[in-house]
Amino acid sequence: MRPSGRLPGALRTLSIDTNFSKHAEGSALIRMGNTEVLVTASIESKVPPFLRGKGEGWVTAEYGMLPRATHTRGDREAARGKQSGRTQEIQRLIGRAMRAVVDRKAMGEMSIVIDCDVLNADGGTRCAAISGAWVALHLALRHAMNKNILGSMPLTDQVAAVSCGIFKDTAVLDLDYDEDSNAGADANFVLTGSGGLVEVQGTAEGAPFSEAQLLDLLRLAREGTAQIFAAQKKAVGIG
Amino acid sequence: MRPSGRLPGALRTLSIDTNFSKHAEGSALIRMGNTEVLVTASIESKVPPFLRGKGEGWVTAEYGMLPRATHTRGDREAARGKQSGRTQEIQRLIGRAMRAVVDRKAMGEMSIVIDCDVLNADGGTRCAAISGAWVALHLALRHAMNKNILGSMPLTDQVAAVSCGIFKDTAVLDLDYDEDSNAGADANFVLTGSGGLVEVQGTAEGAPFSEAQLLDLLRLAREGTAQIFAAQKKAVGIG
Amino acid sequence: MRPSGRLPGALRTLSIDTNFSKHAEGSALIRMGNTEVLVTASIESKVPPFLRGKGEGWVTAEYGMLPRATHTRGDREAARGKQSGRTQEIQRLIGRAMRAVVDRKAMGEMSIVIDCDVLNADGGTRCAAISGAWVALHLALRHAMNKNILGSMPLTDQVAAVSCGIFKDTAVLDLDYDEDSNAGADANFVLTGSGGLVEVQGTAEGAPFSEAQLLDLLRLAREGTAQIFAAQKKAVGIG
Amino acid sequence: MRPSGRLPGALRTLSIDTNFSKHAEGSALIRMGNTEVLVTASIESKVPPFLRGKGEGWVTAEYGMLPRATHTRGDREAARGKQSGRTQEIQRLIGRAMRAVVDRKAMGEMSIVIDCDVLNADGGTRCAAISGAWVALHLALRHAMNKNILGSMPLTDQVAAVSCGIFKDTAVLDLDYDEDSNAGADANFVLTGSGGLVEVQGTAEGAPFSEAQLLDLLRLAREGTAQIFAAQKKAVGIG
Amino acid sequence: MRPSGRLPGALRTLSIDTNFSKHAEGSALIRMGNTEVLVTASIESKVPPFLRGKGEGWVTAEYGMLPRATHTRGDREAARGKQSGRTQEIQRLIGRAMRAVVDRKAMGEMSIVIDCDVLNADGGTRCAAISGAWVALHLALRHAMNKNILGSMPLTDQVAAVSCGIFKDTAVLDLDYDEDSNAGADANFVLTGSGGLVEVQGTAEGAPFSEAQLLDLLRLAREGTAQIFAAQKKAVGIG
Amino acid sequence: MRPSGRLPGALRTLSIDTNFSKHAEGSALIRMGNTEVLVTASIESKVPPFLRGKGEGWVTAEYGMLPRATHTRGDREAARGKQSGRTQEIQRLIGRAMRAVVDRKAMGEMSIVIDCDVLNADGGTRCAAISGAWVALHLALRHAMNKNILGSMPLTDQVAAVSCGIFKDTAVLDLDYDEDSNAGADANFVLTGSGGLVEVQGTAEGAPFSEAQLLDLLRLAREGTAQIFAAQKKAVGIG
Repeated sequence: MRPSGRLPGALRTLSIDTNFSKHAEGSALIRMGNTEVLVTASIESKVPPFLRGKGEGWVTAEYGMLPRATHTRGDREAARGKQSGRTQEIQRLIGRAMRAVVDRKAMGEMSIVIDCDVLNADGGTRCAAISGAWVALHLALRHAMNKNILGSMPLTDQVAAVSCGIFKDTAVLDLDYDEDSNAGADANFVLTGSGGLVEVQGTAEGAPFSEAQLLDLLRLAREGTAQIFAAQKKAVGIG
Repeated sequence: MRPSGRLPGALRTLSIDTNFSKHAEGSALIRMGNTEVLVTASIESKVPPFLRGKGEGWVTAEYGMLPRATHTRGDREAARGKQSGRTQEIQRLIGRAMRAVVDRKAMGEMSIVIDCDVLNADGGTRCAAISGAWVALHLALRHAMNKNILGSMPLTDQVAAVSCGIFKDTAVLDLDYDEDSNAGADANFVLTGSGGLVEVQGTAEGAPFSEAQLLDLLRLAREGTAQIFAAQKKAVGIG
Repeated sequence: MRPSGRLPGALRTLSIDTNFSKHAEGSALIRMGNTEVLVTASIESKVPPFLRGKGEGWVTAEYGMLPRATHTRGDREAARGKQSGRTQEIQRLIGRAMRAVVDRKAMGEMSIVIDCDVLNADGGTRCAAISGAWVALHLALRHAMNKNILGSMPLTDQVAAVSCGIFKDTAVLDLDYDEDSNAGADANFVLTGSGGLVEVQGTAEGAPFSEAQLLDLLRLAREGTAQIFAAQKKAVGIG
Repeated sequence: MRPSGRLPGALRTLSIDTNFSKHAEGSALIRMGNTEVLVTASIESKVPPFLRGKGEGWVTAEYGMLPRATHTRGDREAARGKQSGRTQEIQRLIGRAMRAVVDRKAMGEMSIVIDCDVLNADGGTRCAAISGAWVALHLALRHAMNKNILGSMPLTDQVAAVSCGIFKDTAVLDLDYDEDSNAGADANFVLTGSGGLVEVQGTAEGAPFSEAQLLDLLRLAREGTAQIFAAQKKAVGIG
Repeated sequence: MRPSGRLPGALRTLSIDTNFSKHAEGSALIRMGNTEVLVTASIESKVPPFLRGKGEGWVTAEYGMLPRATHTRGDREAARGKQSGRTQEIQRLIGRAMRAVVDRKAMGEMSIVIDCDVLNADGGTRCAAISGAWVALHLALRHAMNKNILGSMPLTDQVAAVSCGIFKDTAVLDLDYDEDSNAGADANFVLTGSGGLVEVQGTAEGAPFSEAQLLDLLRLAREGTAQIFAAQKKAVGIG
Repeated sequence: MRPSGRLPGALRTLSIDTNFSKHAEGSALIRMGNTEVLVTASIESKVPPFLRGKGEGWVTAEYGMLPRATHTRGDREAARGKQSGRTQEIQRLIGRAMRAVVDRKAMGEMSIVIDCDVLNADGGTRCAAISGAWVALHLALRHAMNKNILGSMPLTDQVAAVSCGIFKDTAVLDLDYDEDSNAGADANFVLTGSGGLVEVQGTAEGAPFSEAQLLDLLRLAREGTAQIFAAQKKAVGIG
């Protein structure tokens, strides 16, 4: 039924490598099928103005897509001179997702900037970015602990994301581009390792969807993120 | 329990006036408590480039906030030279919400631009904008019918939005600014008159929320939008 | 002779309400016929860099027009990414007009930012903005006195503005849009309550105008602003 | 009484050279004392979108100041990424002044772009720009006649500008920078060769000014522009 | 003598992979030591305005660096809203280099956009970009031949680049970041497969350099590019 | 053979005037044939952030071209809102050239900003700018010595630039616009008074060039800059 031949509840092949970036304090190259996102986490010793002197840290994110990560070449945002609304929406989402599992007081006054750059896109880039960002963030924070910048790990939980959607009237997990372009509705779920909801973003692309459908999608998201949480643990070596 | 003294399921005082704008084909000044949004709907005879020659119409939205709509003055986006990520996210949401209840083929090649400008802000501005936008859109389309630009009404349903949240561990309807700033989680629901979900945007501000809480919020949203749908009908005179 | 049927020396219906803004320290919703401008005055505790440490205050203004304040929708300046030359010219004028009647030394190091947003436009928006701005400024300064931020009122006089023009070879007061688009010459006069000239901006739209015509326009402006000064006094309760 | 030792009604030394630019269809290097502005007039065969197909021409102007035309270096607007409000106000003024003496129907569908670049600034740059622009415009139009692009001269009159002000309670002509910085009021007058007023821009820098003072300044402006008109004629060889 | 232990004339380990990009018509992931650049070549069926109707093609390039490709995180150009002077200089260089070996008439009216994105930076990114761009360009043109968009290969030669410099008074090949930061002079050479010079960009960082030194650097560049030409041939399978 | 009738090794008529700017600490109006560049050097008492507290000075440059310095009018960069890649490339080159002959430690913490504005363009503007900039810089530094801001002259040598090219298969000196547009290759050489190379920028416009040709161009550049060095000395009165 699915263009890829996957079962409705099947995640794409997932891998997370942590050695791609030469310089970042933490990094992850996450692949979900043909979607590939390079995430780096950079430690900075300053916080944004609104936090100065409050003894708290900050985690923020930026997102970009290489011009030819997509089927047809998209404009380079740096050349156009501004980030699209879509880009800004995504990077705000990634930042919120990370902050949901960080004890910012435990960080002290330091920042971590997460950069998520899509090298190849085949649907689900924001979700892959979030799942990879947790790995990069974990590694950067551990780096800070190893350097005695931090005394303890400020991460309170895992966080991961997956998209689900109604495709040909069936709830399916982890939409690829073909499905995403034709889904009746899709939703991105950001979940914690302990099962809590951090973000739910459901959108009807065609007809409105029902509460029952929303719950079907959420159930699939729980199944999908369980596998992502396992891959994250393995990537950071705490499995 | 609520700062305003409202019951958990109580909407703020709601009014929709349709005579404020002198020039727009459709307009609505919507007030939800102290939140006040002026919405205009402008008919344009052209469509965006990607739709040219396809025989379909388009509905899009822009959103802005007067600098002193808020407790402390915010920068004027026109002076800063760019719209914030928040602004872009909101205007994309409003556009999607309107398009969900429009038969764009029935519009033919015309556009309607919805402008939502917040005159006074006290929480829930994007939801008020959506609820008001439907009224302005309805009036503009009726104007087009009266002018024989359109032969029939392309609106397929009503659409309205309301925010709900977990405030002091209780699910409450229609957050004002005080509640919004202190909510553990909040969610914006965009619903159709016939009960379908168009958008669900739930965000944990502090601790993650549960599926049960999400469903509590959705139930409140259904109750709240029922009242908004009635007010919309009254405003456009189809009650 | 005038499209509106007004006599040459007749001002449009004028009203100034001071309760529209929920948050601003001072505000005025001024209507001159179908022109409607919302003005807020916001107190800020800092001054621009060039005044730091000099013990003087500052008053500045920003101006905007809602996209559909006009007959046909105009681009949103925030979306275009810059303010037009016209906008900048107007907001500079409003700022100068206010500063002409403020004892900035008496303010101490504080700023007041005047925001003038045109909700409905039918000619004369910059003049209405100035006349309304004085009311908002007065109220904000009185607020500062009530809060013991200021010991005395730094306003030294009233200030108001009106446009006049040569329409069908006759000098007329308070041009509306129809007249403004067809005037041979128009001039904006900014006058103080005591009769002094703060700004004179006369422009020939078609044939050049004569000194005698300029003086005719000035005479009308004196008559028109007399009524505006009275309305300002009433609005701030010092009539 | 004046810092320069000039009499109240004395213009600065004025010269207009027409050979500085190697490429422009018309050009003028105008010097008023130490103020020096290079003006070029460029013929373009197209008109702005709003005039297409209407059989009329267009004249527009741009203005700039070299970063070190001033006492202390100013930011380069190209580097800052936007033109200041002052720049935009001035270039709009120059464009209006030129269009006031051009029969745009006689031009046919062509444009002339006037570029005014201040090489050295000592007050009165916008007025010098206007006075020089008329010369460059005249030469460019004559060039078009010589090339048989135009059958007749579309200029209907001369136009020139001068600033006057109240300095130490005396009305003085042609303010230099020292006077301009200390004037109680100043006014820019744009006059036609036949004595009509094209623009009057009077501004109180300190105390408001009176009608009598405005008329004093206008009288000085008439005397000053008489000399500029003579210099313009000589520059274009129609004296 | 060199921080890396390399001999003066030794190139870093070089590899060129051509399968990284999922969508581009041609692509190359080039690694020179720790410098890693992803290059894609995208075919577009239109040409820039200045070439329309001339029957010629165009090749242009854009360049970017991921924020954390470097030792410390750099600002994201898309977020800053403009490309740096360095970025623009580099992308202009890459475009010129490619056009030097393309018969643009043989392309017909099509464009190829080269995107060079630095994933990891350790000196020499512009040279690596050029060397990789030739591979991506070759593959995209061959793709166009396979699709019968082109009848013959428009590439007339190979082109590659390498940086050389005076490090501790010795001419060395293929500077890494440590050397580049401390070089007395460095030069980028863009050479064709047949030995011609396309670009020479030599810069004294400290003391000026001599003609003899320039020739030493050029000799090294010839040796280095010989190896790169071999790797390019292998990558595109024409070795 | 050359369009201008010049011999291959002949420089255009060269003049350097030092009195054009009224305000700058140092300035030069340099003419090479019909190319005319106004250069000013402005002393500023602060250094860029990356140099603060290091006891070193800074020299930087900005470059611009008047819109009608060229055969056809070019867009004003301030109006377009950004500097072109070409502009940025040139101003970076000028800055590097100046810094190559300045002992920045001897400057102490001060900056000199060089502004190069092309009044008339006929090829070779960047080279003329560099040659003129040295004169303006010298004068500004001498001004600083006269004002006891500096105790000694931080300039360590002269620096000048000239373009050469292969025109109709012959190496020629100091290309004008006609030659530059048709040259097979051109190169800009920045040389010091003592004969060292500061920058070499050679570009093949058509066919690649050979090492022998590069050396021919360099030889011409040495002859050309010898004349420029003499003119610079004369201009600053140290001949």
